[in-house]
Amino acid sequence: MSTSTADAFVLDETTLDLLFREARTANTWTDEPVSVEQVREVFELIKLGPTAMNNQPMRLLLVEKGPGRDRLVKHMSGTNRDKTAAAPLVAVVAADTDFHERLPEHFPHAPDAITWFADEAGRERTALYNAALQTAYFIIGLRAAGLGTGPQAGFDKDGVDAEFFAGTSWKSQVVINIGHPGEDAWLDRLPRISSDDAIRVV
Amino acid sequence: MSTSTADAFVLDETTLDLLFREARTANTWTDEPVSVEQVREVFELIKLGPTAMNNQPMRLLLVEKGPGRDRLVKHMSGTNRDKTAAAPLVAVVAADTDFHERLPEHFPHAPDAITWFADEAGRERTALYNAALQTAYFIIGLRAAGLGTGPQAGFDKDGVDAEFFAGTSWKSQVVINIGHPGEDAWLDRLPRISSDDAIRVV
Repeated sequence: MSTSTADAFVLDETTLDLLFREARTANTWTDEPVSVEQVREVFELIKLGPTAMNNQPMRLLLVEKGPGRDRLVKHMSGTNRDKTAAAPLVAVVAADTDFHERLPEHFPHAPDAITWFADEAGRERTALYNAALQTAYFIIGLRAAGLGTGPQAGFDKDGVDAEFFAGTSWKSQVVINIGHPGEDAWLDRLPRISSDDAIRVV
Repeated sequence: MSTSTADAFVLDETTLDLLFREARTANTWTDEPVSVEQVREVFELIKLGPTAMNNQPMRLLLVEKGPGRDRLVKHMSGTNRDKTAAAPLVAVVAADTDFHERLPEHFPHAPDAITWFADEAGRERTALYNAALQTAYFIIGLRAAGLGTGPQAGFDKDGVDAEFFAGTSWKSQVVINIGHPGEDAWLDRLPRISSDDAIRVV
């Protein structure tokens, strides 16, 4: 599947395994809880990852077990319902499409940057792209905390947005189940593209 | 800036520094070269990161110094020209908008998945989003290899696509300079959003 060797890296095999090689999308969980505070610590780490013009559109709704979880689960698709119901903690990852309003603070050396995002479609695309970068940092950060993740795109986004984000500029993108992987937590790894197909050199 | 502590993580401080805390977007480089082979090894690692339906749209054009680099530099904006000209190696990160043609291989348990992406606008959006996830994994992987990165969105995308990707389904998204950071490689870190502003709990 992967032919990478440790020679190319400064991190050791155990760390590469934790972050990429052994890490897998988890479908089952142990009873061990995950605290909001732990995910907050992960966020404090991964918010340092780079985005375009430091725009930082990713937002997180952390959904604990209880009434909030019930409100989320009903918008999940098919078998995702049971997985999201069972996860110790769940993060609804959203993009703030009004991220540009914070650019005067986050990108101070271009004071007029906020005006570059007047076009709503372009702004939404920028939010989607950069929140995706941050979502990947978040997944890596959760793995660095020893946590398993189960990202799921299969849910009713409009339903989730109406349920939790009405009247705001937050738009849901992905739901990530978080916990310690349980028994039979994953399927066999699916095939990956070869570097010969994905990389060209000029 | 960041209030995260090591208590929340299983990785040590040195690793967290390498991947996030001390890692910075680099603007200058030492003379130490970076080989195509090393970046290929990074790709073999980070291609294991999760994407929606395992769709893997990210593609890389690695641009060495020489005639290829000259063809790229002319499409860069303003001060990005000098940075991209000077970098030991440069990756043009693209999204393959025809990623869906490989889903029968990459997502075999849904043999008709290829038909779910007949709509070009929806397919392009999916490519953008998932290639962004993979781009973040790629940046983390380069850091894990001890390399500095300088991602840049400021370039003429249509010009780069016409220059290198004419007649293909690859669409450029970001240009990443790669090397070992040199003197005065970065500016002060820009402000990040507080977790209180970015996280809600329900």
